[in-house]
Amino acid sequence: MDQSDDSPRHLSRRSLMSTGVLAAGALSMAAPTVGTPVANAPALARAGTTKKIVLYAEQLPGGLFGYGLAPGQATVPGPVLEIYEGDTLEITLVNTTNQRLSIHPHGVEYSTDSDGSPLNGSFNNPGETRTYVWRSREMVATTGRRFMPGSAGYWHYHDHAMGTDHGTGGVAKGLYGALIVRRRGDILPEKQFTVVFNDMMINNRMAPATPMFEANLGQRVEWIAIGHGGTFHTFHLHAHRWADNRTGMLEGPSDPSHVIDNKDLNPGSSFGFQVLAGDGVGPGVWMYHCHVQFHSDGGMVGLFLVRNADGSMPPGAEEAIHRFQGHTHSHGS
Amino acid sequence: MDQSDDSPRHLSRRSLMSTGVLAAGALSMAAPTVGTPVANAPALARAGTTKKIVLYAEQLPGGLFGYGLAPGQATVPGPVLEIYEGDTLEITLVNTTNQRLSIHPHGVEYSTDSDGSPLNGSFNNPGETRTYVWRSREMVATTGRRFMPGSAGYWHYHDHAMGTDHGTGGVAKGLYGALIVRRRGDILPEKQFTVVFNDMMINNRMAPATPMFEANLGQRVEWIAIGHGGTFHTFHLHAHRWADNRTGMLEGPSDPSHVIDNKDLNPGSSFGFQVLAGDGVGPGVWMYHCHVQFHSDGGMVGLFLVRNADGSMPPGAEEAIHRFQGHTHSHGS
Amino acid sequence: MDQSDDSPRHLSRRSLMSTGVLAAGALSMAAPTVGTPVANAPALARAGTTKKIVLYAEQLPGGLFGYGLAPGQATVPGPVLEIYEGDTLEITLVNTTNQRLSIHPHGVEYSTDSDGSPLNGSFNNPGETRTYVWRSREMVATTGRRFMPGSAGYWHYHDHAMGTDHGTGGVAKGLYGALIVRRRGDILPEKQFTVVFNDMMINNRMAPATPMFEANLGQRVEWIAIGHGGTFHTFHLHAHRWADNRTGMLEGPSDPSHVIDNKDLNPGSSFGFQVLAGDGVGPGVWMYHCHVQFHSDGGMVGLFLVRNADGSMPPGAEEAIHRFQGHTHSHGS
Repeated sequence: MDQSDDSPRHLSRRSLMSTGVLAAGALSMAAPTVGTPVANAPALARAGTTKKIVLYAEQLPGGLFGYGLAPGQATVPGPVLEIYEGDTLEITLVNTTNQRLSIHPHGVEYSTDSDGSPLNGSFNNPGETRTYVWRSREMVATTGRRFMPGSAGYWHYHDHAMGTDHGTGGVAKGLYGALIVRRRGDILPEKQFTVVFNDMMINNRMAPATPMFEANLGQRVEWIAIGHGGTFHTFHLHAHRWADNRTGMLEGPSDPSHVIDNKDLNPGSSFGFQVLAGDGVGPGVWMYHCHVQFHSDGGMVGLFLVRNADGSMPPGAEEAIHRFQGHTHSHGS
Repeated sequence: MDQSDDSPRHLSRRSLMSTGVLAAGALSMAAPTVGTPVANAPALARAGTTKKIVLYAEQLPGGLFGYGLAPGQATVPGPVLEIYEGDTLEITLVNTTNQRLSIHPHGVEYSTDSDGSPLNGSFNNPGETRTYVWRSREMVATTGRRFMPGSAGYWHYHDHAMGTDHGTGGVAKGLYGALIVRRRGDILPEKQFTVVFNDMMINNRMAPATPMFEANLGQRVEWIAIGHGGTFHTFHLHAHRWADNRTGMLEGPSDPSHVIDNKDLNPGSSFGFQVLAGDGVGPGVWMYHCHVQFHSDGGMVGLFLVRNADGSMPPGAEEAIHRFQGHTHSHGS
Repeated sequence: MDQSDDSPRHLSRRSLMSTGVLAAGALSMAAPTVGTPVANAPALARAGTTKKIVLYAEQLPGGLFGYGLAPGQATVPGPVLEIYEGDTLEITLVNTTNQRLSIHPHGVEYSTDSDGSPLNGSFNNPGETRTYVWRSREMVATTGRRFMPGSAGYWHYHDHAMGTDHGTGGVAKGLYGALIVRRRGDILPEKQFTVVFNDMMINNRMAPATPMFEANLGQRVEWIAIGHGGTFHTFHLHAHRWADNRTGMLEGPSDPSHVIDNKDLNPGSSFGFQVLAGDGVGPGVWMYHCHVQFHSDGGMVGLFLVRNADGSMPPGAEEAIHRFQGHTHSHGS
């Protein structure tokens, strides 16, 4: 059981780079559960770098839709898009479907024609290709010794045109993904996991088909959590905690941030944090789940498998996974 | 289309000052969508200043109720009440209705007889006039190098007596408004917008009758968002972001605050922030809406019109506004 | 009316110490509404201290279940468990019931066998005794001048095995309590109140049977708020405010935290803060309640009685309490 995640596509950074789609730099495109050690990649981006990518919106089995970086490679969630403050991302969106759709980002800057909304006539008709431009920047000093915030954050993108003027149909069917804007000097993770609570599903799946994320003991893992749909949720991760601030880490003893392991994850919101897998608690199988009780009972739960440092399975892990795959999530065994 | 907002009343700071109701000072009373450039007003208030105002609670067309600063001038939301830490606000509330009602503030200090609750016998019977006193102060040092918080914040006020002991009837019908307590040195905005998510409405309206807020490119705009009712919401503003802290701006590179463009806005909560209209994105028509999908589809959406710097309409804006006024918010065009 | 709270048990620190269950130190075990002046207790704990306690899970009248520190002393919520960063808490849980159950903590560190989850086979069968070990630590420096967060926080613990694999049955019936991990130097309170919003109840009660918390004017009071169940809530306290950070107090003028008096309190989340009872507002009877309007109307409201500094009743307090005990919470009087 080397790779339990059965996401449609696993896009490694290496494979993306080799397609020639991406300019060399800090832009990391990764499928939600990719295991690429992004911390090992050089951070070559400079302020003002423009990255051009092509995204394909595609229909998937089961009535789903997804975004992908190459034809036939759409996933739910779509690829993690990642830039540094100052970078521009130019996205050519190819709509291979028979539906009106778009891409709308949070956190970054765009003109009305890149808004992704029908309000501004910013969408792809069926079969249409359209380019969206997202810009970013560093914080800017203003009066009173304060700063207008820069773009850095754990953001997300999603359709804003399928089904309704707010993209309710596209969001429900999987047209969403993570967008990370880093500040220079931010610590890069070794692994990234995208978790989307979308109505009563995680990444449009229910347990036991929800993603099992994997890391080795001590690896620096980045979680990006995104809320969608029409239901309220709280994201909980067992045995790991994070600071409720921009990075998930404390700036020092005077950083007043709450430290938490459970956080509201409601439609349109997102957050991210880094943990060291199994730090202080050891390897094993740890749950992440919505803490609204009937949501977790109903299948909004997945596994975080922390392997031994050498990648081998820790004692009891196989049994826990089998237990998870067999149980019903609605009553005790 | 110079002024698309059809709120019942537009109260300019100038007109309020000329009524003689307000003492000169930093107290800014403004209807929710007033365009008064409050940053141009002198900040004369000193700690300990007591401001006395008269508020009129009135019945409005459509079964609504509102607070206003003069007879016949009640609005939904009521006027923005604004003081500096240290100030006292003495409110003589005239109940012109045939209902029991009160005014209850968040964030400031008051004795039980100004609580606004039936629990403490603090309300106006029908036709009754009653005075409520709200005090404020700066932070106070305590042990351990920490400080008990001062009153500064984006707060709100609302009825706590109509219909039920919690004012559920009055809140549902429009008896609410923004209360701002500033810290000395805080940056003053040029415009202020009050947005109240109240069950499935914004300021007790549904699209396309929701407020269209307007500013010129680059103007410093202050948003005050308030949650009410019995439903959960998330407030999202397109193409603008803010720091999730007291001011919405960063204190510098070590300020660990999240930067966001979407935030939970649930009953009894409030927050505020300042943005530079269209900064980095240009003029145009930008949506603000609840990001719970079926809420936005159902009409919890409004427009933020960012005009050109000279006040003229940017290309495409008229078309977007007409599109908004015509569409149904429940399915694509 | 010296003590209006009719919780099943009142465990004073003194009585706990005298049972010999607790080693001398900073570990404070208290029933939710205990009036013990914990600030007067010496803080003797050193990093690495291991505290051993025995908890009894018991069935209570009315179909409830609770945790208690001695046989026959279970309460809803369970006792406040309190340690310093660096301490280890070793809990021997005696299951006196005929149900499968466990104890699962937030915020602290534990191996899979102390996870409290059926997933990891970590629970007590009916009648079984099992030991759970929770560890904690201070923040740890990492690269980039940042720190991986320590364990300090206002956390909580709850069943994770009764009824469903997520403990939905146990949580619904009262198997929950507060867990505080302090940082060295944190200010100790004189009183502690635990408030759990659990579906449409507070500490599994509805008004007027909800707890009435009491303090004398100026006493330093610590509130620990915990969310459970399947419903969204907002916690509001009248006439008091706090900083929305780890301690509820500001670190100084550059602390950017929101100051609030209303906060989302959703399943699995918790927070805490300290206020000086009646500070700036005087003694009296102050409401705390869920601000979701129909929740407060439905009985999610309780009283915070701030007595005069000498412990005597302030004017109007008796009347307010009687009014509260008599009213229906669904319409005006």
